[in-house]
Amino acid sequence: MSRFFSEKYKNLVAYVPGEQPRDQKYIKLNTNENPYPPLPEVAEAVRAESEKLYLYSDTECVELRKILAERLNVSAEELLMTNGSDEILNFAFMAFCDSKTPAVFADVTYGFYPVFADINMLPYEEIPLKEDLTIDITDYFGKNGTIFIANPNAPTAIALGRDEIEEIVKRNPGNIVVVDEAYVDFGAESCVPLIRKYDNLLVTQTFSKSRSMAGARLGMGIGNPELIRDLNTVKYSLNPYNVNRLTHAAGVACLKKDEYNIRNCGIIMETRDRTAKALRDLGFEMTESRTNFLFARHPAVSGEELYLELKKRGILIRHFSKERIRDYNRITIGTPEQMDALIANIKDILEEKK
Amino acid sequence: MSRFFSEKYKNLVAYVPGEQPRDQKYIKLNTNENPYPPLPEVAEAVRAESEKLYLYSDTECVELRKILAERLNVSAEELLMTNGSDEILNFAFMAFCDSKTPAVFADVTYGFYPVFADINMLPYEEIPLKEDLTIDITDYFGKNGTIFIANPNAPTAIALGRDEIEEIVKRNPGNIVVVDEAYVDFGAESCVPLIRKYDNLLVTQTFSKSRSMAGARLGMGIGNPELIRDLNTVKYSLNPYNVNRLTHAAGVACLKKDEYNIRNCGIIMETRDRTAKALRDLGFEMTESRTNFLFARHPAVSGEELYLELKKRGILIRHFSKERIRDYNRITIGTPEQMDALIANIKDILEEKK
Repeated sequence: MSRFFSEKYKNLVAYVPGEQPRDQKYIKLNTNENPYPPLPEVAEAVRAESEKLYLYSDTECVELRKILAERLNVSAEELLMTNGSDEILNFAFMAFCDSKTPAVFADVTYGFYPVFADINMLPYEEIPLKEDLTIDITDYFGKNGTIFIANPNAPTAIALGRDEIEEIVKRNPGNIVVVDEAYVDFGAESCVPLIRKYDNLLVTQTFSKSRSMAGARLGMGIGNPELIRDLNTVKYSLNPYNVNRLTHAAGVACLKKDEYNIRNCGIIMETRDRTAKALRDLGFEMTESRTNFLFARHPAVSGEELYLELKKRGILIRHFSKERIRDYNRITIGTPEQMDALIANIKDILEEKK
Repeated sequence: MSRFFSEKYKNLVAYVPGEQPRDQKYIKLNTNENPYPPLPEVAEAVRAESEKLYLYSDTECVELRKILAERLNVSAEELLMTNGSDEILNFAFMAFCDSKTPAVFADVTYGFYPVFADINMLPYEEIPLKEDLTIDITDYFGKNGTIFIANPNAPTAIALGRDEIEEIVKRNPGNIVVVDEAYVDFGAESCVPLIRKYDNLLVTQTFSKSRSMAGARLGMGIGNPELIRDLNTVKYSLNPYNVNRLTHAAGVACLKKDEYNIRNCGIIMETRDRTAKALRDLGFEMTESRTNFLFARHPAVSGEELYLELKKRGILIRHFSKERIRDYNRITIGTPEQMDALIANIKDILEEKK
């Protein structure tokens, strides 16, 4: 820390992204990336767009919002595009929390929520998940704060039903409920159809997982036009040109062939269910996943040990040191071949433990 | 404003970017874009990179920082890449200002500085430029705040010499001086060679102007490794993947042929000086520009009128309503042909006024 760093950040602990090693070629099952690359049409779109790079990007993302609105069955005024969904989440912390309105979220959820609160010097309350790592929705009724719910939750992989989220939204009419749907396209129910019914509901989504565009950084907020206007006030006070031309063009091209992404999500869900079964057969316990990852533990091997043993063998999965979940690992669903390699290696590791 | 928008932002006024009309084809001389497109090598690089879009971008921008470090004659540890230079400027406001350390900047400068202060709820002091729109460096000696100096300044186009900035840095040993060099490549002196001499100096630059990449959003901070570490703490607490893969690849390709950008800057400076002479011959008064724009006024036509008349004729320039500079317009330097069209149209407008 330099002697100039503001005292307000003296105790700030930044988010730690999943490791991206450069030293060797790993089977990467640690950052929930989609294993299928985008279509050639995306490559062609960004090539063509690059000729216009000397001109600023469209701050309003008009073309992208138009096609996305059709896809989501909302209007363009109900959409705001951001530099990944991390950015829309941070905007929501800034716009809808303050010293009188704390952020409220689960004790085990996306690890960035407490960091967003800290960097913005906002109070927050963590609500413990139940023993089985599910959410008790009644814990979220009548909170005097802005609620952030990852649905499906990460890293637990567990989803609430739309009706359960709706109940939370209904029971907090004076406060915003943000539903972070980064993983919703892998078999959970989206709350987007509820945004016209509730003026206190904001949904966030991302192109990173189900649309194979983690490297393009494209996220979005979906909510009633008044909320979107507030979030735009924040955006235009921080980084009006937040979505660059190349990402915008990639997003448009990607949506024009969205059936490709939907098909890939289907394949990933099949691979997930097959992998879950194989792991259960090996003695793993796991939550019911509605995401592109599994959250699993084994009675005979600690989470950390499994992570380290797999890393030695060239396979990366994600381990968290947090007390409540240190027995578990988060395993991204890759291609069928990658999952076969994972299972074969886990078999070996378990054999050696005997 | 929704009923949920935090009271702390009740009076927040967002930044207003230059207009980007969609209704017709204008000669765009209003947002200081470079008129020359990037090289085909950039197009090829982003096309190739798009195949890896399913993987997250490199949070450390290793390849880009390596080549940029060579270009700037600094080390990679002295560099931080951001989503445009707006983002690094905001990081600096966050990291180095607080209730005890106000931001300090000129009354006429980049219009985003007060917005960055406001969104972060930071106090700030505006120091009036002299009557001739130049900076009196002695006004900046011994300030108990974090100083932001756009050099060259915008929209005045006037540059301080490196020795003058150095004097300000020297006279504020207990505070950071941020030198915003968005326009430095059009004939001003960069302060990058001073970063090892002063631990309180942060320089920011951008690929938007001199490298024809406004639409790619690529900015950077240059300073000693301790300052860069602080700024990285902020970055990793907001948006670790802030620079996407496509922009990263475009930046690398662009730097590999930096001589193209340098040549374009030379052409723009020639066009600028020729345009300045032509406008002076028509009775305009203007500052001495070290940027890719002119800041000019005419005794016979108000700034607003000239702006509106040119817009009618299909040419966009930038007018600011701020009291001190409302007589002026900021005119981006385009291609020689665009500037010929500008001058011909201004001649007509002045003729009609007679």
